[in-house]
Amino acid sequence: MFVNRMPRFEPLSDDALATIEAGVERLAAEVGVQFDHPRALELFHDAGQTVDGSCVRFDPGFLRAQAGRAPSAFTLRARNPARDLVVGGDHMVFGPAQGPPFVRIDGVRRDGTMDDLESLLKLTHVTDALDTPGRNMLEPNDVPLDVRHLVRALAAIRLTDRVWSGEPSSDIAAADCLRLAEIVSGPIEDAPVLFANCNVNSPLHFDVRMLEGILAYAAAGQAVIVTPFLLMGAMAPVSVPAALVQQTVEALAGIALVQLVRPGAPCVLGSFLSATDMKSGSPAFGGPESALGLYASGQIARRLGLPWRSGGGTLTASPAVDFQAGYESMNTLQAAFFAGANVCWQSAGWLEGGLVTSFEKFAADCELLDLLLHQFTPAEVDDASLAFGAHVEVGHGGHFFGAEHTLERFRECFWRPTVATTDNHDRWTRGGSLEHAARATKRWQELLESYERPPLDDALEEELVEFVERRAVELGDPISV
Amino acid sequence: MFVNRMPRFEPLSDDALATIEAGVERLAAEVGVQFDHPRALELFHDAGQTVDGSCVRFDPGFLRAQAGRAPSAFTLRARNPARDLVVGGDHMVFGPAQGPPFVRIDGVRRDGTMDDLESLLKLTHVTDALDTPGRNMLEPNDVPLDVRHLVRALAAIRLTDRVWSGEPSSDIAAADCLRLAEIVSGPIEDAPVLFANCNVNSPLHFDVRMLEGILAYAAAGQAVIVTPFLLMGAMAPVSVPAALVQQTVEALAGIALVQLVRPGAPCVLGSFLSATDMKSGSPAFGGPESALGLYASGQIARRLGLPWRSGGGTLTASPAVDFQAGYESMNTLQAAFFAGANVCWQSAGWLEGGLVTSFEKFAADCELLDLLLHQFTPAEVDDASLAFGAHVEVGHGGHFFGAEHTLERFRECFWRPTVATTDNHDRWTRGGSLEHAARATKRWQELLESYERPPLDDALEEELVEFVERRAVELGDPISV
Repeated sequence: MFVNRMPRFEPLSDDALATIEAGVERLAAEVGVQFDHPRALELFHDAGQTVDGSCVRFDPGFLRAQAGRAPSAFTLRARNPARDLVVGGDHMVFGPAQGPPFVRIDGVRRDGTMDDLESLLKLTHVTDALDTPGRNMLEPNDVPLDVRHLVRALAAIRLTDRVWSGEPSSDIAAADCLRLAEIVSGPIEDAPVLFANCNVNSPLHFDVRMLEGILAYAAAGQAVIVTPFLLMGAMAPVSVPAALVQQTVEALAGIALVQLVRPGAPCVLGSFLSATDMKSGSPAFGGPESALGLYASGQIARRLGLPWRSGGGTLTASPAVDFQAGYESMNTLQAAFFAGANVCWQSAGWLEGGLVTSFEKFAADCELLDLLLHQFTPAEVDDASLAFGAHVEVGHGGHFFGAEHTLERFRECFWRPTVATTDNHDRWTRGGSLEHAARATKRWQELLESYERPPLDDALEEELVEFVERRAVELGDPISV
Repeated sequence: MFVNRMPRFEPLSDDALATIEAGVERLAAEVGVQFDHPRALELFHDAGQTVDGSCVRFDPGFLRAQAGRAPSAFTLRARNPARDLVVGGDHMVFGPAQGPPFVRIDGVRRDGTMDDLESLLKLTHVTDALDTPGRNMLEPNDVPLDVRHLVRALAAIRLTDRVWSGEPSSDIAAADCLRLAEIVSGPIEDAPVLFANCNVNSPLHFDVRMLEGILAYAAAGQAVIVTPFLLMGAMAPVSVPAALVQQTVEALAGIALVQLVRPGAPCVLGSFLSATDMKSGSPAFGGPESALGLYASGQIARRLGLPWRSGGGTLTASPAVDFQAGYESMNTLQAAFFAGANVCWQSAGWLEGGLVTSFEKFAADCELLDLLLHQFTPAEVDDASLAFGAHVEVGHGGHFFGAEHTLERFRECFWRPTVATTDNHDRWTRGGSLEHAARATKRWQELLESYERPPLDDALEEELVEFVERRAVELGDPISV
């Protein structure tokens, strides 16, 4: 796992943070949050908060106090113990794009299929820089909707040995995912194994489906990420400070609910904050507002003592793997490093504002992520690193290609890209003048060819298959897996 | 001018900086620097330093003491006083690519011409984010070599009203540029108007041509930027700390020479630090080593109290305006902001490791630069920014498109790109599926069409033309300008 030992970039002053925190208290107390689930309302009522219809208004300090019951860091166990994840502190967890209905392979855009999803799971398994496939790198549109959670979870378990994410969108799906996790890992309540990413229906609203997910995963002690999805101008005001206030209220309201269900349960403060193109109403990604939002979100999460999920890995609004996709992706993913994010979804493959998972971009993004893992690894500065002897050897106006210091280190001394080229123009032209996206095709194909299925106990697999096939029958869509 | 009011990113500890500074003293004292000019050797000898052939070894503390005589900030006067530049402190100066022999327009790569250079000067004039055209945005290969400096300087004066850079590569060229500057601005010795960027022949060597330039511009009190050009593995050891030591010794040696010529003359500590692809020997740009080098160079320059030129605007090794070019450019230019650079050349148009100035990339880079100017402008955080009233208006689960707070601000609330798209797939496809580079063509053409020549006094222009044409005759290549 990557541990971010570089300093944090913290542009907000203590005064600015205090202003935001006062705004959080006011919004929580005066406008409050709507919860469409009787159990949530009951829990808040029993905790002494003001419940008015489905709206909860929070006493000053209540949300912060509940957040204080959540651990500042915790471990998620993987099927392969070498892949266990620490969530919190200076650790960073990276996962690929989540949720796109469409896939783009070799320039062709079409509906995603289970076969595509399996390839993406394999690519994630072989990519060292990625820690978890999450839940849905792509919608498998050829699998019936009500059994998709079963098929996806089974594929994640079979094809990778990493931590995966449970389906949060109903209590049925949550219970199935929790059962699959127990089959693999035994009792999980006190040693969590799953992420459950729960989006808020911003502004200030949790619907019944997300609440079913939150309540189920909280009761089971799994890692609930509460993520406000804020496109400023649409689900939040057109001001970064206002969006930060709203994001904090929403995330803390969800985390407070988790703590009321199960005090001390692992939680992650989620964020996903970007701007809207006010001309077209379309989402914009990778711009200055998202980066500022990320830096500030990190500061807010650290003051709350909570692990934090950054909204933004390699985000882009671009429909193609082009210059725009490159700079927007670099800007958002890099901001997560500067801001000290603990969990970064959407770090590989995201294209077209999240409507598409692109295989080419998956390979391109993994290079970019690997670059940043190197960039955020502090350089050792000691006398040996100053290479004084190399200067004595080379002298004035010479070159270092053949210096002993160089020869000893040339293989490892610099980061090496997997897709980017340093070819000169002649060589590049002779190779077919392939742009980055075209070269990335070769890279993901190589990665996929290198895939080997991680070992899985036969009896365990049989039990998983039996469970999935039985549940599919019960859900009315029999499948053979 | 842009003033960078965000915090600096400073990854090096005080211990690490002390180690580097001790390394600087040792390298300067024990290996020293070679100067191929008798006047330079004489100046160092008279200042009590050890001159051994053409090599100068420096007493401990000498270089730092000389650097202490240079101002920590100064102003360069432009032909249009509204375009005066502050160099130092939190101010940042941006200039486009410098030096490429080739141009790329609409996907065609060919030798640069004077006509191309004039178009680039016009583009720079109309781009608010750029502060200076510098000296040679492109080599005009259709102009004879020995009069190129005259033609270029005259074009910069006529087509823009911004600060430009003098030719540093010989005393003849320097004298001509200084004379042209005096014709425009009157006496310039105590109120400088020109940059002169002088590259070191790294490692640890100043050749006679660069020294002629340094001596001439120093005597005339113009802003000398001393820039070690370090590709680690070629001109520097394969270690970032070692390269930082070398860079500091080289830059300080040049700055010390300036101070011996004219104490208090304005100087800029230059840097240009990148890695080499150790497989091919080709330069690599935009990687983690350059970014780390930039962060650290800023820290070193601030401890020395010197204005600092970052090596790196929108650098890329890519031969095309593609994903690689996007992320490498974003990484290097952004690092200059985090590092608090005062002067950023190569911030627009650079392609193919600096061999090409691309018109498409010029437009693409200007968007990227504009994005970062917004990203590094602190958000105002006060009660009004929290938009509490918008939440009261919109409530739970609503949307903010029609909120009063939004309607009052929607035109200005977010950064707006000029080339990037947020179009959905259908709209993008209907528009011809144009990738970023293709859309950038339209942008630079629009910019060029918007150009209006800034006013220039007729008598002044006549005097400039007369001087240039007379000097061209004297240099043996008569021209009509």
